[in-house]
Amino acid sequence: MPLVTVKMFKGRSKEQKKALVQEVTRAVCETVNVTPEDVIVVIEEMEKENYAIAGKTFDEPQQER
Amino acid sequence: MPLVTVKMFKGRSKEQKKALVQEVTRAVCETVNVTPEDVIVVIEEMEKENYAIAGKTFDEPQQER
Amino acid sequence: MPLVTVKMFKGRSKEQKKALVQEVTRAVCETVNVTPEDVIVVIEEMEKENYAIAGKTFDEPQQER
Amino acid sequence: MPLVTVKMFKGRSKEQKKALVQEVTRAVCETVNVTPEDVIVVIEEMEKENYAIAGKTFDEPQQER
Amino acid sequence: MPLVTVKMFKGRSKEQKKALVQEVTRAVCETVNVTPEDVIVVIEEMEKENYAIAGKTFDEPQQER
Amino acid sequence: MPLVTVKMFKGRSKEQKKALVQEVTRAVCETVNVTPEDVIVVIEEMEKENYAIAGKTFDEPQQER
Repeated sequence: MPLVTVKMFKGRSKEQKKALVQEVTRAVCETVNVTPEDVIVVIEEMEKENYAIAGKTFDEPQQER
Repeated sequence: MPLVTVKMFKGRSKEQKKALVQEVTRAVCETVNVTPEDVIVVIEEMEKENYAIAGKTFDEPQQER
Repeated sequence: MPLVTVKMFKGRSKEQKKALVQEVTRAVCETVNVTPEDVIVVIEEMEKENYAIAGKTFDEPQQER
Repeated sequence: MPLVTVKMFKGRSKEQKKALVQEVTRAVCETVNVTPEDVIVVIEEMEKENYAIAGKTFDEPQQER
Repeated sequence: MPLVTVKMFKGRSKEQKKALVQEVTRAVCETVNVTPEDVIVVIEEMEKENYAIAGKTFDEPQQER
Repeated sequence: MPLVTVKMFKGRSKEQKKALVQEVTRAVCETVNVTPEDVIVVIEEMEKENYAIAGKTFDEPQQER
């Protein structure tokens, strides 16, 4: 029954998101001893202007990462 | 001061959401002894492609539930 | 598949928490048209010193609510 | 490495959001002794119909605050 | 800059948790095209009495999964 | 009605936490035009073994930051 939430920037394709939930589910099952049916993964997509490190949002051009 | 968050799929009407927050607030008040003014409810709406069980997202047709 | 999180102060008994999850689950089912098996409820318990309104934590005696 | 999440209603400008993350980052650094590079701020924007106090959502006209 | 949160029951060893964060980080990097330094993983541990499906908490003996 | 959550490592004093919520509340009010009574701040405290960057938890000695 692990509940996994992945917050990340918008822009990934459906295929990438399918691969993401599949691989994260596998990683959880292999390491903490649960079955896939017990694992829930929720993706939350953010705008770059809504995420900041060191007080700077990611929609500013000088920002890297 | 309970803070309740309900994540669910998009697609409910405003009337359903009003009923949801009303009934959830009532359920909390009746069981943990707070007044309605103390209860905050936040609804977060998800796309089906952003929610997975057993490594499969809910926008896949074979998926049931 | 609604995921419900209830953050509240520590101190409720197991019986209160059982009643809480039961009644919240019922409230969600009745209003947004899902079955109980689809509803997950997580309780997160807080210390009073970790919750503030208007910049004041709830472990201060003058605080009411 | 404090992770700060701010949920608030939609409608703020990019400038307001930039000021928000900057000032919140400063507030965290000054009070819990971390450097700005350690502070992450995420903004989550809500619709008024998805937020309720006392069982009433904020898109209802009689609601104040 | 994906932020991953894993909520699961208490009781895993430090070794299991180290493996978990390592494998989840790898899964995220491989599928959504980020570098490990961009991935943050937070583990949140729950008591069984604070998690419910179908209105029943997991500290009840009849519960399976 | 901004809801602010600050996740950080355990170990801050009550005085630091009081200062934190006070200053964060002020920062929010000044930048997004709300009154202090509208701002809720929740602090969530983490163990170092439950937080990882680049797949490494913070209880490992070689880790800096």
